[in-house]
Amino acid sequence: MNTNNGFIALVLFVTVTLCSCEANSSLGNASNENPPNVIIIFMDDMGYGDLSSFGHPTIQTPHIDRLANEGQKWTNFYVASSVCSPSRGSLLTGRYPIRIGLAGEKHRVFFPESLGGLPTSEITIAEMLKELGYKTGIIGKWHLGHLQEYLPTNQGFDYYYGIPYSNDMDGVKWGLETFFAEPDINMWNVPLMENETIIERPANQHTITKRYTDKALEFIQENQNDPFFLYLPHSMVHTPLFASEDFLGTSKRGFYGDVMSEVDFNVGRITSKLESLGIDENTLIVFTSDNGPWHLMLEHGGSAGLLKDGKGTTWEGGMRVPGIFYMPGTVTPGVIEDMGTSLDLLPTIASLTGAPVPSDRIIDGVDLSAVLKDKAASPRDHFFYYRMREIYAVRNRTFKAHYITQTAYKKDNQRRVLEQPLLYNILHDPSEKYDHADDYPEVLAEFQVLISNHKKTVKELPFEMDRYPE
Amino acid sequence: MNTNNGFIALVLFVTVTLCSCEANSSLGNASNENPPNVIIIFMDDMGYGDLSSFGHPTIQTPHIDRLANEGQKWTNFYVASSVCSPSRGSLLTGRYPIRIGLAGEKHRVFFPESLGGLPTSEITIAEMLKELGYKTGIIGKWHLGHLQEYLPTNQGFDYYYGIPYSNDMDGVKWGLETFFAEPDINMWNVPLMENETIIERPANQHTITKRYTDKALEFIQENQNDPFFLYLPHSMVHTPLFASEDFLGTSKRGFYGDVMSEVDFNVGRITSKLESLGIDENTLIVFTSDNGPWHLMLEHGGSAGLLKDGKGTTWEGGMRVPGIFYMPGTVTPGVIEDMGTSLDLLPTIASLTGAPVPSDRIIDGVDLSAVLKDKAASPRDHFFYYRMREIYAVRNRTFKAHYITQTAYKKDNQRRVLEQPLLYNILHDPSEKYDHADDYPEVLAEFQVLISNHKKTVKELPFEMDRYPE
Repeated sequence: MNTNNGFIALVLFVTVTLCSCEANSSLGNASNENPPNVIIIFMDDMGYGDLSSFGHPTIQTPHIDRLANEGQKWTNFYVASSVCSPSRGSLLTGRYPIRIGLAGEKHRVFFPESLGGLPTSEITIAEMLKELGYKTGIIGKWHLGHLQEYLPTNQGFDYYYGIPYSNDMDGVKWGLETFFAEPDINMWNVPLMENETIIERPANQHTITKRYTDKALEFIQENQNDPFFLYLPHSMVHTPLFASEDFLGTSKRGFYGDVMSEVDFNVGRITSKLESLGIDENTLIVFTSDNGPWHLMLEHGGSAGLLKDGKGTTWEGGMRVPGIFYMPGTVTPGVIEDMGTSLDLLPTIASLTGAPVPSDRIIDGVDLSAVLKDKAASPRDHFFYYRMREIYAVRNRTFKAHYITQTAYKKDNQRRVLEQPLLYNILHDPSEKYDHADDYPEVLAEFQVLISNHKKTVKELPFEMDRYPE
Repeated sequence: MNTNNGFIALVLFVTVTLCSCEANSSLGNASNENPPNVIIIFMDDMGYGDLSSFGHPTIQTPHIDRLANEGQKWTNFYVASSVCSPSRGSLLTGRYPIRIGLAGEKHRVFFPESLGGLPTSEITIAEMLKELGYKTGIIGKWHLGHLQEYLPTNQGFDYYYGIPYSNDMDGVKWGLETFFAEPDINMWNVPLMENETIIERPANQHTITKRYTDKALEFIQENQNDPFFLYLPHSMVHTPLFASEDFLGTSKRGFYGDVMSEVDFNVGRITSKLESLGIDENTLIVFTSDNGPWHLMLEHGGSAGLLKDGKGTTWEGGMRVPGIFYMPGTVTPGVIEDMGTSLDLLPTIASLTGAPVPSDRIIDGVDLSAVLKDKAASPRDHFFYYRMREIYAVRNRTFKAHYITQTAYKKDNQRRVLEQPLLYNILHDPSEKYDHADDYPEVLAEFQVLISNHKKTVKELPFEMDRYPE
């Protein structure tokens, strides 16, 4: 398919679905008299091992750890992609990237030249909650299409403030020496937008974490009497790293740690604001990350802790991230070892708010609200690790099978389609060291059924990521 | 040197020093009116990543985590050897293994045929505290010589109960298939001793964690009105793994996790006992491990978390372990990122109790009490990673240099004496991935001075580990 045809097909699709949304025919029915506010704090490239509560020896994140300790700390929490754009699209829609056009044969994320975006036919959490009268805002990194039609304001958000894609894009000179040099905002000509307007270019990234939070506090203040949905995807800790002056030199982990400290401090500002307004017990906070650490960035990249590899791969380090849920009085504190995924946020938020889950399409997410409230067993029992169009690995309860392996960015790495899958007991062996394929042929057979059934349900959309000017 | 000569030399040394201890001439002066009790809980082969508070996703250790959260969690805490016997000797004496005869050219630990042990000329924490009138007990694994003269009762302990060496020794058939088979105490003909008598053989290891704790509670009960020193080196989680029936199947991590759960539960019994006796605020609890995880044991071995390699190596995974200090009202809660080591326990305990530090010999430990009490900067600024007789690596503040590298147990691993050392910023890069030797020649030069000065102070004792019947 050439990109032009894809573009036309997409526009038609958008029109139809926007209509259906307005008529509410695609949404089910539910209600909740005093629906909670929802805040999703989404880190960029922060690894499984980058919080002190998840074991980092020299990064201290007391404010985030507090949410984990007084809320739920999920240790088997996944995102639907090991790279940025598809991970974000799936979080907002509850659907695997392959179903929402966020796959491709050439590209894995959107770049400044991209013509595509998250199809507006998709229903985001923001759109879902707007049906209930929520005020909706996104403050931070969007990365789901930056042409007019794909901007957050056309995807259910009343308000947008942030950098529309990765903070290393529009680089004057992209390379490790630039990443590791003294931070200079002029090396990264990225725009800062408010709603649909560029208000600053290059964005002053030194203060970006602070300013995102300032705007978030304003949004909370203004909407304290409405139910609101605030999606707060930080631009940090994606390289190039930037921190405010106050945080430079504060962490033994070095610059990466300084940046983490600033994010952590600013998470504390959010919590304090909710408390000072007296709405903390009616606000669900979700804290997680879009994918694993970017090891290509060496010491400027994060840590996956005990997990294997990082961003870009379907090893655990690429797609398992810290998952934290906090809502005093509603979320029962504890460590949750059961599986959860970012796909599950949409149905879980629907359940907690009474919003109607889109009923005219397949939603891959499951409702985790009983786990949050009562520490019930998680209904999430399996998960597909996609890389672009293909399933590379699958987890089913205790086991994870790899069918294709590929390291993230190493030049010497070749994609390997395995003759015999690798099979790990991922609960016993989270580091994926000890293959049990020979021991459990019946388990592998069950995996084949899962994959086969799943594939029958997948209808690929045009590849948004491959749409570029001719 | 043949082993016979070594043996004679040693006996002479012992005689002289025992006399000097009795005359108290080798100890300095100090006092404390109400000296605290001291409990050291020492795990066997538990890795840096094996506690939930240190980031394991499927091991839950709430009782140990409580000590870490309400006490101090040290994230840069080291033991003086990556294997058992020398690590234990150094913990008890505050001296590097090389100084106390716990090195060798052939062997790294004591085996059932060994003739050697920790020279009784050495002064243990138990001996130091006995000078102050402490009641002293060791309940658990000794592994510092099991011939009469080396037993704990001749090293300052009033009472001993436990398995005198590793729980896999005296194996009927040593091999992975035995380790991974259904646990059978008859496969491991290890003795259980009380004082100097074997009371059970083979020891019933199914109940060993519970029984160690039962004895520890008795010891605490009996000595509640005296100051006491209780050294509690568990035989678990060294393979072969054993757990009581109540704990089988309790952990998602599998059998290893079940065993960890039982240890954790039994740590909770100790804390509860202190609280019920009202002596918790006058009792220092130290919790740590003798070395990193035994990766040779696959899923029956533990995890070093984000650290490299494990037991047997001088990579961080071999010698950095969880360090936890707990004493409500005295130990100021917090995460300590500064360095500490097991060598430092003797002078720290001396400082807290008022016991005299041995003054007639070099003590490699430093006093950490100001860190414990006031979160002062740690006086520990450097550390030598020995493997047998040689310094393989050195840490000095931020940096760690490797001069010799060797993986633990892999057959294809060859010892490599590096032409140019590897240099890691261990605070930024705890996983030892990014070499900076070319960037900091002045740092490497400083290391050379440290090593040179240290070597001048080292006088090797006869190699206790190589003493075997002819």
